[in-house]
Amino acid sequence: MAAEFDSAKPIVAILMGSASDAEAVAPAKEIFLEFGIPYEIKVLSAHRTPDQTLAYVRSAKDRGINVLLAAAGGAAHLPGIAAAVTTLPVIGIPIKSKSLNGIDSLLSIVQMPSGIPVATVAIDGAANAAILAVEILALAHPHLSTALDAFRNKLQDKVLKSSV
Amino acid sequence: MAAEFDSAKPIVAILMGSASDAEAVAPAKEIFLEFGIPYEIKVLSAHRTPDQTLAYVRSAKDRGINVLLAAAGGAAHLPGIAAAVTTLPVIGIPIKSKSLNGIDSLLSIVQMPSGIPVATVAIDGAANAAILAVEILALAHPHLSTALDAFRNKLQDKVLKSSV
Amino acid sequence: MAAEFDSAKPIVAILMGSASDAEAVAPAKEIFLEFGIPYEIKVLSAHRTPDQTLAYVRSAKDRGINVLLAAAGGAAHLPGIAAAVTTLPVIGIPIKSKSLNGIDSLLSIVQMPSGIPVATVAIDGAANAAILAVEILALAHPHLSTALDAFRNKLQDKVLKSSV
Amino acid sequence: MAAEFDSAKPIVAILMGSASDAEAVAPAKEIFLEFGIPYEIKVLSAHRTPDQTLAYVRSAKDRGINVLLAAAGGAAHLPGIAAAVTTLPVIGIPIKSKSLNGIDSLLSIVQMPSGIPVATVAIDGAANAAILAVEILALAHPHLSTALDAFRNKLQDKVLKSSV
Amino acid sequence: MAAEFDSAKPIVAILMGSASDAEAVAPAKEIFLEFGIPYEIKVLSAHRTPDQTLAYVRSAKDRGINVLLAAAGGAAHLPGIAAAVTTLPVIGIPIKSKSLNGIDSLLSIVQMPSGIPVATVAIDGAANAAILAVEILALAHPHLSTALDAFRNKLQDKVLKSSV
Amino acid sequence: MAAEFDSAKPIVAILMGSASDAEAVAPAKEIFLEFGIPYEIKVLSAHRTPDQTLAYVRSAKDRGINVLLAAAGGAAHLPGIAAAVTTLPVIGIPIKSKSLNGIDSLLSIVQMPSGIPVATVAIDGAANAAILAVEILALAHPHLSTALDAFRNKLQDKVLKSSV
Amino acid sequence: MAAEFDSAKPIVAILMGSASDAEAVAPAKEIFLEFGIPYEIKVLSAHRTPDQTLAYVRSAKDRGINVLLAAAGGAAHLPGIAAAVTTLPVIGIPIKSKSLNGIDSLLSIVQMPSGIPVATVAIDGAANAAILAVEILALAHPHLSTALDAFRNKLQDKVLKSSV
Amino acid sequence: MAAEFDSAKPIVAILMGSASDAEAVAPAKEIFLEFGIPYEIKVLSAHRTPDQTLAYVRSAKDRGINVLLAAAGGAAHLPGIAAAVTTLPVIGIPIKSKSLNGIDSLLSIVQMPSGIPVATVAIDGAANAAILAVEILALAHPHLSTALDAFRNKLQDKVLKSSV
Repeated sequence: MAAEFDSAKPIVAILMGSASDAEAVAPAKEIFLEFGIPYEIKVLSAHRTPDQTLAYVRSAKDRGINVLLAAAGGAAHLPGIAAAVTTLPVIGIPIKSKSLNGIDSLLSIVQMPSGIPVATVAIDGAANAAILAVEILALAHPHLSTALDAFRNKLQDKVLKSSV
Repeated sequence: MAAEFDSAKPIVAILMGSASDAEAVAPAKEIFLEFGIPYEIKVLSAHRTPDQTLAYVRSAKDRGINVLLAAAGGAAHLPGIAAAVTTLPVIGIPIKSKSLNGIDSLLSIVQMPSGIPVATVAIDGAANAAILAVEILALAHPHLSTALDAFRNKLQDKVLKSSV
Repeated sequence: MAAEFDSAKPIVAILMGSASDAEAVAPAKEIFLEFGIPYEIKVLSAHRTPDQTLAYVRSAKDRGINVLLAAAGGAAHLPGIAAAVTTLPVIGIPIKSKSLNGIDSLLSIVQMPSGIPVATVAIDGAANAAILAVEILALAHPHLSTALDAFRNKLQDKVLKSSV
Repeated sequence: MAAEFDSAKPIVAILMGSASDAEAVAPAKEIFLEFGIPYEIKVLSAHRTPDQTLAYVRSAKDRGINVLLAAAGGAAHLPGIAAAVTTLPVIGIPIKSKSLNGIDSLLSIVQMPSGIPVATVAIDGAANAAILAVEILALAHPHLSTALDAFRNKLQDKVLKSSV
Repeated sequence: MAAEFDSAKPIVAILMGSASDAEAVAPAKEIFLEFGIPYEIKVLSAHRTPDQTLAYVRSAKDRGINVLLAAAGGAAHLPGIAAAVTTLPVIGIPIKSKSLNGIDSLLSIVQMPSGIPVATVAIDGAANAAILAVEILALAHPHLSTALDAFRNKLQDKVLKSSV
Repeated sequence: MAAEFDSAKPIVAILMGSASDAEAVAPAKEIFLEFGIPYEIKVLSAHRTPDQTLAYVRSAKDRGINVLLAAAGGAAHLPGIAAAVTTLPVIGIPIKSKSLNGIDSLLSIVQMPSGIPVATVAIDGAANAAILAVEILALAHPHLSTALDAFRNKLQDKVLKSSV
Repeated sequence: MAAEFDSAKPIVAILMGSASDAEAVAPAKEIFLEFGIPYEIKVLSAHRTPDQTLAYVRSAKDRGINVLLAAAGGAAHLPGIAAAVTTLPVIGIPIKSKSLNGIDSLLSIVQMPSGIPVATVAIDGAANAAILAVEILALAHPHLSTALDAFRNKLQDKVLKSSV
Repeated sequence: MAAEFDSAKPIVAILMGSASDAEAVAPAKEIFLEFGIPYEIKVLSAHRTPDQTLAYVRSAKDRGINVLLAAAGGAAHLPGIAAAVTTLPVIGIPIKSKSLNGIDSLLSIVQMPSGIPVATVAIDGAANAAILAVEILALAHPHLSTALDAFRNKLQDKVLKSSV
């Protein structure tokens, strides 16, 4: 799929709270590669690097970022804190946690107070977070809309060709 | 706030599974009014009116809709079914349910399979669903970005003026 | 057990949302084989192939299907969507999910709104889904009632012969 | 709706564990009245009247009963115990419980062991339990199939006429 | 520890719903051996062998049984059904279940309706079920009271000798 | 029902963690009155009066107490702490709590470590706690066994006379 | 109780995410009054006023604050974000939330990642949060230790004087 | 890091309910070593060694202990019982449990009644429990405050140097 975007100018950003989340976040990277979306990816913690996190999110819009993805587990504050300092859409990815399987991550991300939304996807739903970002970008970039249709067709074909 | 949009041409749609969800959905309408976003609102059920629901969602893009909000409770399939037949961003609003307080609605909406995302907000989080829609629209409509900043400032002022 | 049915004319259908559900669904096939019930089995997704799913379910009755089994995990919409477009009995099988162990699948399937029931069995309860279908078919096919009695006796004998 | 059945010969039975469940069970009665299905209804407890419960369920088939509905709350054993002594389809209705809101009732009913299914509906889902029974009866009684279609149309119309 | 009881005359009974529960139940046997309590052990299912289960429990008192232990998982009806047909104390052991880790077993056992108690212990708490039985027996058999004191001392010593 | 016991010599004790638990515990008193069981009742807290609690429980056996009931809510330690200092049977009653409806109370009471059992009943199950105590006492007091049979018959009659 | 502290120099701070938390936080104020601890109290939101929140927490130590209390509900980020920018002890108070009764607030506060602790108390446990703060302050202020002993005695007396 | 404390005079104590908790508790020891905090560590059970536990906790203050850590799983009473007999700050560490993954441990520890707080950290959060203790000690020992700043910087650097 030919990309319309300048690969040196990321338009989406992927944040994760810890390098240990990299594996859970990988499917988002694959989606962005598949759709030709230039992305930047960074480990930044709401708790361990609050200043850098806020600075990074605050400058995102001016750097050309359109949508932020933020993945975190446990008391997962990263997406909510990002949402607090930008009006860009923030997509939260709850990471499956060691003891509570991610129900803590999910509730910490989705139950945001009125005024500051986080668009939450399934536990370990990094692929869907990226697809949602593509859907948002497609509103201004019609070629992505076409690409999403093709992607859907591929999903559909895979199901239809399944034999059991 | 002066609206830039043609009020006769809705750019967002609010779906709800039952007329009894109207109260829970009302805060979304208020947000859209506040931001001058023309919206359409409709009761359509994934289970009771599947054909009309699919037809409505499928035609949304051509009608000029950019973002869909879908509210549902219990085995809340409406957002997911909408997402299945459009590549527009779909925002799911889990409605608090009578017996399980909305944890069923939340899980039914957020735990979507890979490929078909639903941007999920908090239980009874209709206001945030609408704000998220505004954030998405603001990517192509800078005046909304300004309006969001003003809205945030208002939120901030309200907190700062609280006395306890 | 001698079958009374034409093996070329399935009277029950097993749907699953993904080929990865095949293993969880296998016990249903074994039950139908044991009772001599001709079945058809198909991978169809409420989200990835909504049209084909609806068409398949809608035509089921005319094809001679009496009961549908639908297995799905996570935001498990397949049984509910099937139930929305047929008045045949639909039996829902919640599949154990990766992060939440199937409690999401269970609630997404069982908490259906008034008007559109799904007969829900236990998480990973494919065998019981099939037995329930046999019980339903037995209302019109007395030989199945006899077979169910024999099946129950076998279950009973197995317990009574257990030594610990 | 004209009934095809002899009103003196119930073909479905509704069991409940306690007279206090009567209100929760009432919607099932209304459905059966609407569809002209003669029913019998009885308070019988798995724990307080085990013998009478077993005798009642065991004799159901010979009395002409085709489907049993059983409603119970808390450690809700009634549907499972009924299913243990009949091969008629048993539909379980989890009643909302005082402390745990029915999640105990739901798990006690739906998580049946392999071999003895209970067709479980939503918490306080008595109406759907009855509709499911009608769907099962409709396999042998085509007029019920027609009536179900009409019922679905009514549901659909009600949604389509909603204004919000 | 010298036993005061006739080893041919069991005074406690251990029931389990399936032979697959044998491992979970084994710690109860060890406790009874340690305290010199003659026990009988049997696989009997509330769902697969309801008649044999009821007959076994009903005759328990006349056979000299003082306390019944009943272990079951999932929709764990065995302890409750046993309690329904005897006034002997029934101790319920929730077995850890495959999908829900035993929270279903626990709620199915502990949430009994007023009038028919089941003395419930922890998930997979077979050892404690047996110790509770010994505590009950000790009310009439003072040597068991002494033995329990010694057992407690052993527990205490083990903790006090731990080094970390 | 004529009592065989000296009403001045309590043989069971009811503990509760707070005077606010009195209403939840009242059904236990009614049961003991009905069965003619002399009881003592006391407010003692595992956390606010640990010494008095331990002293009271430790002296219970010598005072003639056979069974202890302990009711508590939230981080409900009272039953477990009582069980730690006596080998009398301790029956735990989880009180419905303000925020979590008693699931915290239930888990805090039932999930005891190996060696120190608490016989746990349903949330707010004080009546069943008392009946369980009567069942235990009946092992040495045959008149209670007869009384329990009569009590069961009354329960049964009440169900059989229900009309709905 | 005579205060040793300068009432114009608060040594503890109470933060809450919204003025609507004031009632839930009130018991903390009462405790501080009772122990003569000068406190400051402020509404500051992690999401609506992130900068002011961070500035306030960061300057707390230099202003003479020893311990921070932070109360929040839902996706309760306030305590964690406070803990991220101070090494003073932060005590988190989960507020009971509208739909999920505070289990979301609790998990969002307590499940902090390694490195940044929040000392969490019970849902709506503002009084205990304040008492914990007093216990911490008492390490350097022996008169508080004496006051805590008196407070404990009062608690104990209240229990011992309860009659039921 | 040079220690200011006499290594022969522990100022913090780590309790655990069972030697099997040693591995979960180890991260606390590492933190104390890193900060040069002399600690004592002991296996003592609220249920198996109640007297020794109470005696140990009661004498802690006079032995020079400033803060107690208590780790326990299941019906985790150790932290609460420790808190009942000291006014020193008690930090509770919920240990991940075998069947319920530690949600039982967490609720048993955190849901303490008003008057007796336990400062609760995350499930298996021993490291954070120790860091919280250091934060408390730092109020009177400024060198620990400096050390905590350095520790935070190290955490921050580790995040900033992550590459993914």
